[in-house]
Amino acid sequence: MNKSIILHIIGWILVFEAVFMALPCIVAFIYGESSGFGFLITMGICLLLGVPLTFIKRKSHIFFAKEGFVSVALGWIVLSIMGALPFYITGEIPSYVDALFEVISGFTTTGSSILKDIEILSHCMLFWRSFTHWIGGMGILVFILALLPMAGGETMHFMRAESPGPSVGKLVPRIRITAMLLYVIYLGLTIIMILLLLLGGTPLFDSFIITFGTAGTGGFAIKNASMADYSDYIQNITTIFMLLFGVNFSIYYLILFKKIKSVLKSEELRWYLIIIGSAVAMIAFNIGGLTGFFAALHDSAFQVVSIITTTGYATVDFNLWPTFSKTILVILMFVGACAGSTGGGIKVSRIVILFKTIGKELSYLIHKRSIKVLKYDGKKIEHETLRSINVYFVCNLLILFGSLILISLDNFDFTSSFTAVVTTLNNVGPGLELVGPVSNFSEFSILSKFVLMFDMLIGRLEIFPILLLFAPGTWKK
Amino acid sequence: MNKSIILHIIGWILVFEAVFMALPCIVAFIYGESSGFGFLITMGICLLLGVPLTFIKRKSHIFFAKEGFVSVALGWIVLSIMGALPFYITGEIPSYVDALFEVISGFTTTGSSILKDIEILSHCMLFWRSFTHWIGGMGILVFILALLPMAGGETMHFMRAESPGPSVGKLVPRIRITAMLLYVIYLGLTIIMILLLLLGGTPLFDSFIITFGTAGTGGFAIKNASMADYSDYIQNITTIFMLLFGVNFSIYYLILFKKIKSVLKSEELRWYLIIIGSAVAMIAFNIGGLTGFFAALHDSAFQVVSIITTTGYATVDFNLWPTFSKTILVILMFVGACAGSTGGGIKVSRIVILFKTIGKELSYLIHKRSIKVLKYDGKKIEHETLRSINVYFVCNLLILFGSLILISLDNFDFTSSFTAVVTTLNNVGPGLELVGPVSNFSEFSILSKFVLMFDMLIGRLEIFPILLLFAPGTWKK
Repeated sequence: MNKSIILHIIGWILVFEAVFMALPCIVAFIYGESSGFGFLITMGICLLLGVPLTFIKRKSHIFFAKEGFVSVALGWIVLSIMGALPFYITGEIPSYVDALFEVISGFTTTGSSILKDIEILSHCMLFWRSFTHWIGGMGILVFILALLPMAGGETMHFMRAESPGPSVGKLVPRIRITAMLLYVIYLGLTIIMILLLLLGGTPLFDSFIITFGTAGTGGFAIKNASMADYSDYIQNITTIFMLLFGVNFSIYYLILFKKIKSVLKSEELRWYLIIIGSAVAMIAFNIGGLTGFFAALHDSAFQVVSIITTTGYATVDFNLWPTFSKTILVILMFVGACAGSTGGGIKVSRIVILFKTIGKELSYLIHKRSIKVLKYDGKKIEHETLRSINVYFVCNLLILFGSLILISLDNFDFTSSFTAVVTTLNNVGPGLELVGPVSNFSEFSILSKFVLMFDMLIGRLEIFPILLLFAPGTWKK
Repeated sequence: MNKSIILHIIGWILVFEAVFMALPCIVAFIYGESSGFGFLITMGICLLLGVPLTFIKRKSHIFFAKEGFVSVALGWIVLSIMGALPFYITGEIPSYVDALFEVISGFTTTGSSILKDIEILSHCMLFWRSFTHWIGGMGILVFILALLPMAGGETMHFMRAESPGPSVGKLVPRIRITAMLLYVIYLGLTIIMILLLLLGGTPLFDSFIITFGTAGTGGFAIKNASMADYSDYIQNITTIFMLLFGVNFSIYYLILFKKIKSVLKSEELRWYLIIIGSAVAMIAFNIGGLTGFFAALHDSAFQVVSIITTTGYATVDFNLWPTFSKTILVILMFVGACAGSTGGGIKVSRIVILFKTIGKELSYLIHKRSIKVLKYDGKKIEHETLRSINVYFVCNLLILFGSLILISLDNFDFTSSFTAVVTTLNNVGPGLELVGPVSNFSEFSILSKFVLMFDMLIGRLEIFPILLLFAPGTWKK
């Protein structure tokens, strides 16, 4: 294990976090909020710890997948530990565990909250809380590598550990340029959304907040009723942009460079849209009797897109919907968005590939000895990718069940416990019953909160980086 | 597709079913029940249809996995369609769909019932209902092949399709002798259990019924309160034998032939006992406050063993237990018993192997390029086995979610819908809430009942035989 380089990277993460905190400081200044001092103190601590670490010289150039995974896992943990401080120092969230839960939920773009009353928080805190979604959406280490000149080998490992999906697609041969392009697309879409919201008369502050939650597919709102009080225009813009941020960003690169043929060939995009379309239709029919068909379509579209992209905003309390609609939403939580987007969940591409393995097995049973080559987007799926998808899938479910056992010690009903784990592990936000869209996670015990924090991190980093932290072999010389 | 041989086999299945029905006829005669005529009529129909089919000459000797799987799937469906007739003809179950549900639940050793009041059924019907568990436990086609002289090739395919578990272990080189040995062990254990129950003062009829439900890991009881009204002795004997029938039968073969070393080496047996031990302890502690520790241990042991072996008997209404205990039971439903036993579920061996693939993936990430060979019971796991386990696991969950969507149209609560699917797909019997151990499946719509029947069949036959029926490639020339 190349410890020097990991410490070096963590140093940079702390420095960047201090820089990020300048933004809520500005917000505090504008609104004249004294809570800003919480950020100043935390920035000081970050710089005090971080700057010396950046001077650590790497003792060796050994940097493999293992080092990449461990840097990312530790980086995210450090980021969260520090990010929670402003809430705690200012007393706006009196318990540090709760503050940590909130900020992990932010960085992992989950959006599950322990706050019973969101609206009493100061503007700077609300800003930071939602800004963590934006930072976490594309990944912090990928951001750093886009700005710092690092050797080529390690950057690929960062990306593999931090970017969602079964494999990393390079847009251009140089991985650093790829990372930069991704951030440019991310920033571009973010700015367009803010402008569109402002055009519709959304207050400036709300425009930023809604956009951060949408871009990172996070879902923290600044109203207790989530997005229910906003106008239809704002809700529709949000629906469209949630959908857009759930798409693999390489699609936008292809569109920018006018490779429309490749866009149309994307199996993941096609299935993503088919799944969304069918789910919207089924739920609209199911709830149509309650509100009339067009209102139902509006509500269904917002909720379906919000859940499948793992954003977690809500315009209605879907906990009151019929079981059929609720079941579809719970299943969409597992499905998740596209690989290479800011969304969580298993990802459409993995689901598509898993379906293909079933087809292969059946054809193997029917025509003995005829081994079909599995293709995805016209290319052969590597055995390594297939194996890793299978293991990811198995791990996901084992962690779900393990967490469920621990959570159930709190003795809440089965549906609440089950959906609490599903929604955090897939980085969605709300669940059903006790953790429904107008409720929160404050009732859980400290043990459960730690289990759910673990689930959010393991969900966002797609299991292996966090698992490697606990594997004894990782730390052996 | 070699249709002639499939029809030939279905003919034999019908003949055997007619022979099996002689037993409830005898019961009807002893108790002087007029319902016996339902069996006589059905026997007539079975022989009328079956005997001519047995005379069909096989046109070719082509018999591959495909033919084996399709024979088994169709065989089980025909068996169920006929098996439901006596209930319907006599009017003891007025709806044919309900009768079909009940008998599929019987043959697949699930034990979920649509009967609101079990105790009003006649003795011969109760006998047949429980006897289907015993027939389904070891598999009907394996039984036929043990008695009929068939060519060697096809018998292996039957066994692969009908025996639970990731791979078929031959006890002796000749597969027909293997099948016979398995049935002798099955019959031997059955007789021992009946004798032990009689020794404890159990009425003769009840001894047979309890033993059928235990041996097939089915769980149909003849009391509305399942096993709650029986003495501690009877409950303890049942606990022990449920445990024994959940063990891979090859273990008994090894014990009979004094190969104790191989028994001790069995990873599946070890994990089966470890999982049961831990679950019993955790639940006993969790419910201990309600009843005192030793009563809790007794209840916990019965319920845990009943659920993990997918029997489904109950001595208490575990639906009233704390969420922690209920969650453990739900997870045990997925785990299931050992391969090569009469139990359902995913099977301990598959779970153990899936865990090993996680270990392999982590070690691959840590020590790049060092490919670990996965071993099970000291032998290398074949790539084909691994692939088939992964596909099985994925299919299992897809069918679970697909069924859940359809079931949820009935608009029962999420927990009831979820556990109804889990318990039928894993051939357990009871679920939670609406389908708890003292409730039944009568409230579901006809659509839901068909979905659950499909799940029971697909669970018992481990997915592929039933899936192949629907694959277009199966029926192409």
